[in-house]
Amino acid sequence: MQPKIGHRGSYTYGQFHQKSRKALEMLDYSPALMTDMYEYTMLDACLKDGTANRKCVFEIFTRHLPLGRHYGVAAGQGRILDALEKFHLDDNDLKFLADRKVVSPETIKWLENFHFSGSIKGYHEGEMFFPNSPILQVEGTFGECTLLETLLLSILNYDSAVASAASRMVSAAKDRPCMDMGGRRTNEWAAVAAARAAVVGGFKGTANLLAAQMYGLKAIGTAAHCFTLVHDDERSAFESQIAALGKNTTLLVDTYNIEEAVKTAVDVAGPELGGVRIDSGDLASLAQRVRNQLDALGATNTKITVTNDLDEYALASLQTAPVDSYGVGTMLVTGSGAPTCAMVYKLTERENSAGEMQPVAKKSKDKATVPGRKLAFRSYEYSLADCEHVISGSEDKLAAYQPEDGWKDLLVDYVTNGENHSEYQGHDAIVNAHNYRAQALAELPIGAQSLMKGDPVIPTEVTVL
Amino acid sequence: MQPKIGHRGSYTYGQFHQKSRKALEMLDYSPALMTDMYEYTMLDACLKDGTANRKCVFEIFTRHLPLGRHYGVAAGQGRILDALEKFHLDDNDLKFLADRKVVSPETIKWLENFHFSGSIKGYHEGEMFFPNSPILQVEGTFGECTLLETLLLSILNYDSAVASAASRMVSAAKDRPCMDMGGRRTNEWAAVAAARAAVVGGFKGTANLLAAQMYGLKAIGTAAHCFTLVHDDERSAFESQIAALGKNTTLLVDTYNIEEAVKTAVDVAGPELGGVRIDSGDLASLAQRVRNQLDALGATNTKITVTNDLDEYALASLQTAPVDSYGVGTMLVTGSGAPTCAMVYKLTERENSAGEMQPVAKKSKDKATVPGRKLAFRSYEYSLADCEHVISGSEDKLAAYQPEDGWKDLLVDYVTNGENHSEYQGHDAIVNAHNYRAQALAELPIGAQSLMKGDPVIPTEVTVL
Repeated sequence: MQPKIGHRGSYTYGQFHQKSRKALEMLDYSPALMTDMYEYTMLDACLKDGTANRKCVFEIFTRHLPLGRHYGVAAGQGRILDALEKFHLDDNDLKFLADRKVVSPETIKWLENFHFSGSIKGYHEGEMFFPNSPILQVEGTFGECTLLETLLLSILNYDSAVASAASRMVSAAKDRPCMDMGGRRTNEWAAVAAARAAVVGGFKGTANLLAAQMYGLKAIGTAAHCFTLVHDDERSAFESQIAALGKNTTLLVDTYNIEEAVKTAVDVAGPELGGVRIDSGDLASLAQRVRNQLDALGATNTKITVTNDLDEYALASLQTAPVDSYGVGTMLVTGSGAPTCAMVYKLTERENSAGEMQPVAKKSKDKATVPGRKLAFRSYEYSLADCEHVISGSEDKLAAYQPEDGWKDLLVDYVTNGENHSEYQGHDAIVNAHNYRAQALAELPIGAQSLMKGDPVIPTEVTVL
Repeated sequence: MQPKIGHRGSYTYGQFHQKSRKALEMLDYSPALMTDMYEYTMLDACLKDGTANRKCVFEIFTRHLPLGRHYGVAAGQGRILDALEKFHLDDNDLKFLADRKVVSPETIKWLENFHFSGSIKGYHEGEMFFPNSPILQVEGTFGECTLLETLLLSILNYDSAVASAASRMVSAAKDRPCMDMGGRRTNEWAAVAAARAAVVGGFKGTANLLAAQMYGLKAIGTAAHCFTLVHDDERSAFESQIAALGKNTTLLVDTYNIEEAVKTAVDVAGPELGGVRIDSGDLASLAQRVRNQLDALGATNTKITVTNDLDEYALASLQTAPVDSYGVGTMLVTGSGAPTCAMVYKLTERENSAGEMQPVAKKSKDKATVPGRKLAFRSYEYSLADCEHVISGSEDKLAAYQPEDGWKDLLVDYVTNGENHSEYQGHDAIVNAHNYRAQALAELPIGAQSLMKGDPVIPTEVTVL
């Protein structure tokens, strides 16, 4: 599908470029060393004593939601699949591990043809999660599963933090579109992931071009203050922008004096002016004044975009102001106070020396884990979720387990015996996740959308069979 | 220099691998689209009207330090130089910009051979900064300078956030080494940058292998709880680790019962055991009990490492506990409550239509800027910094400006007419920045190291000549 031309970068949501798998083609690096060293030293010791071949089940979950949040939004699964396809060690990587003596020569040998051959299931991208939700379960040998720990956590922790913040912002913005403009306030690669996660969390587009290119996202943006400043005066800046981008563009009107700028803007563009952007001051009052001024000038269809350190609370407070769309930066890419989800990757079941699978758990103070592989379901009452059910048990018992009628099975297959389920990768998967999140949030009690601090909106019930 | 072998990943600080410029060789991508779309749309309009060729000076600064901090640590300059070398648009990028109609065909042509040919000066990596410190100044044509905005801000904002947090932690840890273990709690690429920034901020090493490989950093780490759990019992896990990594390794002792684990550890390794790690519970009390137990078992040289959501406040409270080193994760990579530095990139001076350079500034409410290019100095009284002096003026006036005796000139040349000063890139530059930060912090009043919230430890005086 082609983007609409004219008001550049402002195509309607849904008209994403259809370039699935673009991300994969563009990322010509292996994430195999995006890993804590102990994953490799553990592998080395376990290859020596034979336990590296033990079948294992690892689980990713979080013990708590941040800051009195009522739910989280799982994101990053598609990026995990991309990363797995690239996860191999090249000669430089092997030489590095050998030179540093991180692992023994035998382990270097083992790593030469490394490819994850296990299976991964987990929550749908865009799904709500709660404390102890088994967001991802990784099954394979100890050796191959342990190498994935750091990378999987990095992706899920950051992407879910951004998607969770985005989701709160989108709720607070009601039907007004939110756009990601936060790239400059986080690491340059995190910015790309954040743009993608923002769309999973309900945003409609991003200012970040690499994210737009890699994931086929809608890109937005017109001009900054320096554009006005580099010109001799505001009028010539506006004239230049209109000449280049058309009358449907958005003019930034707060470089000098907003009232004068709005007057000049309509003077230059006429009432067909696409929009104005306000980036400072009391946004609600200013939007109201600018709306009245625009209407008085006949520019009744000219849109108002506001930006300026917005978060979900600011968006909620702007609900009655005549604003048409929001650009959100810092607070989006930093998770609005919760820049990580504190997800962990824990061994829950493993083969013993007799070849039998056994549940295992650590008993560390405040950090004990629930042993055993898990199923996960969400139950509903009057069409609203009322409980997250996490069922732990042996493979046999779980296979025989019958959930109650109407329970939603929360686990989907991402990887089966080393093969990706590619429908969860690429552009289409992001659109699906975007829609999935809207639906899943609508199925939670409305208290989920409250900005008051409180408990998770539904309890998690853990049952050990 | 070769790392010491035996206790893997535990070489003494200073014995970094000498692989400067390794990062560059490894990053085979262009950051040219790690950019907000409006940089390109502005370029397009300015190429059309001729202002793209106006000479400009842009400045990066922050209006305030976060959260009552007393100083910030500038980091990321070396990564900026790496990124500039890679900043070009390949055919895919040009096609993307053309297909999306982000810019016109004429601008595509202009971009084909894009290379930044301007100059950049700024604060030394590892230097202290304060509100309005001109951390980086970029001089060139409007067109070339505007394309760099997003990328430069992404790098400086995140790296400086991590280095600033790291510096506070290192102060709180006194002489005990701090190690980065935070990769899993941030974006996977941010993790690599965080490891580097942590070392700039005073850390001694990282768990992140890619950072160790790219920047020649010391790598650390031995085993996680899953290593103990995958074995039939704790003793066989410890035996396996000792067999693979030697007696000088660090054993994780809190999977089940710490007292029993310590007994088993010394039983298996003997008193030559390198170290034990505690990752849960009341770390101070546990460290004290474990120290006494180790001493009673004759393992008087066995070190104690603690990890578990540490931040600068936790480290300060552990000063009297018998701990030898710290592993810091989440709070490091998320900037300990300040995941970005809120730095901005503003046009301060530009050529006018008559070809003369003119200071410019925006007047947006609460976001007004100080016009003109800047010099920056730090003055001292009794060997302690007492003021940051920011001097603004025309190029002529600044050239004639005489700072007072003993003022430290804070600006160094990073890029001159498109050529990097490569001594600020690569491994050696990181070691220099690490040392620079320690010296610069020692020259601040000791109040800088207080964990109490307060004002910047020295004022910034802005003088317009």
